Amino acid sequence: MYLRQTRELTHQGAMVVLQGAIAKAEEMGVPQCIAIVDTGGNLLAFVRMDGAKILSQISATQKAVTAVSSRVPTGGVAQDVEIKLALATAGQLTNLKGGVPITINEQIVGAIGVGSGTGQQDVEVALAGIAALQALM
Amino acid sequence: MYLRQTRELTHQGAMVVLQGAIAKAEEMGVPQCIAIVDTGGNLLAFVRMDGAKILSQISATQKAVTAVSSRVPTGGVAQDVEIKLALATAGQLTNLKGGVPITINEQIVGAIGVGSGTGQQDVEVALAGIAALQALM
Amino acid sequence: MYLRQTRELTHQGAMVVLQGAIAKAEEMGVPQCIAIVDTGGNLLAFVRMDGAKILSQISATQKAVTAVSSRVPTGGVAQDVEIKLALATAGQLTNLKGGVPITINEQIVGAIGVGSGTGQQDVEVALAGIAALQALM
Amino acid sequence: MYLRQTRELTHQGAMVVLQGAIAKAEEMGVPQCIAIVDTGGNLLAFVRMDGAKILSQISATQKAVTAVSSRVPTGGVAQDVEIKLALATAGQLTNLKGGVPITINEQIVGAIGVGSGTGQQDVEVALAGIAALQALM
Repeated sequence: MYLRQTRELTHQGAMVVLQGAIAKAEEMGVPQCIAIVDTGGNLLAFVRMDGAKILSQISATQKAVTAVSSRVPTGGVAQDVEIKLALATAGQLTNLKGGVPITINEQIVGAIGVGSGTGQQDVEVALAGIAALQALM
Repeated sequence: MYLRQTRELTHQGAMVVLQGAIAKAEEMGVPQCIAIVDTGGNLLAFVRMDGAKILSQISATQKAVTAVSSRVPTGGVAQDVEIKLALATAGQLTNLKGGVPITINEQIVGAIGVGSGTGQQDVEVALAGIAALQALM
Repeated sequence: MYLRQTRELTHQGAMVVLQGAIAKAEEMGVPQCIAIVDTGGNLLAFVRMDGAKILSQISATQKAVTAVSSRVPTGGVAQDVEIKLALATAGQLTNLKGGVPITINEQIVGAIGVGSGTGQQDVEVALAGIAALQALM
Repeated sequence: MYLRQTRELTHQGAMVVLQGAIAKAEEMGVPQCIAIVDTGGNLLAFVRMDGAKILSQISATQKAVTAVSSRVPTGGVAQDVEIKLALATAGQLTNLKGGVPITINEQIVGAIGVGSGTGQQDVEVALAGIAALQALM
């Protein structure tokens, strides 16, 4: 009861997610910023694709941090509290779509955040990254 | 008239509030971030329970700081000014529910902020923490 | 190879370390700020004892973060790089004594940082906190 | 004369540097944080290997930014100005070893920063990353 077992992505695992997400974004023709974080919200892997918005570097990372903190995909917070939550977390909690927890055997092992496309495109790329890892497990 | 007497929570007092709040959160099965601040808004005691959102570390503390600053429970600011107040205080004033002043004999001696549950759950845990201290006075 | 098993302190475990450190500091008559972080450097538990320096809140936490990042007690970095490392990590890496990794069965599960006394006193309190947990395992 | 041609790493180019650096670090058995930036100092690619110091995430990136800014490997600034330069750039200019410009046909197209090992190990991994790209040109 003083310690608990957890599982974390290795950097190899994070690179699989990153490569899977890059491949999807290239296929869609939509350059993206893609961030992978561990369960503590620390950056594990990142890429900014040619043509992706430079400011999406920040939002992609915050989407990943938000997803791993709240344990659900980003974008589902009620409108009347989303700005309050962003302000109360020094801008770190974002309700933009594109952050998704990475789940292996029903356990969250990290999260991916994608930004520079539309919210729908960002989610699609995030899911492709996760699927690339799940296919290997 | 040049000095005034105040009463402040000791760290033992803060730990009683913290333990009371943890016990309630465990009973409810809702992991929480719990922050206790003194009347100066400085952190006295803190815990992040297993499974609580990591970003709630920041918002729980801001709830406590807001409650001790405004001297009333958080969440009662009018909607048309809540964002303006947050921005004008560098994000520190939050109108999220879950911050409650700690009152002993009608005197505010600090505040507790709770975050990671619903607003209602956060308030319930905060009140249980305060009640644990009041029961000993 | 895509995932790795780790162990983390629970909040119960963190509270044992905190209480053990408080007991030692009270016995020594030296009020302290005491921070416990997990392996990701996120705050798990904190106390500021009566009379402890308010600015030590920040340094105690950074000592814990530094210890869990570098995986050794703080204070051992060579003098010719200590300031450079602090500046290159936005002030987060500190070479002040008082941060110690929490090791259970030769595995690091978090860290404790103590500040407000002398370096030697801070280390003594940190070790007492860790010993309190190890005695229960 | 109003516009000039530049050459920049693509994200594919950055991933080649990243993979080359990871391979070297794995061969050496030294986990590293590795950051690749473009000529504007914006992050292109990043990885934090298992066991690398979490705070090296920040310093590795600053090493890359410093290298691309000054156009020479980091670590060569005179001791009497290194801290002044760090402070005058909000901590961004670092004189720690491990940042190296990425040069293709005598033109700087970005930089790599590596941190978590000794200065010498960091440089070795940085050079291996650059060599992996140069071998393909």
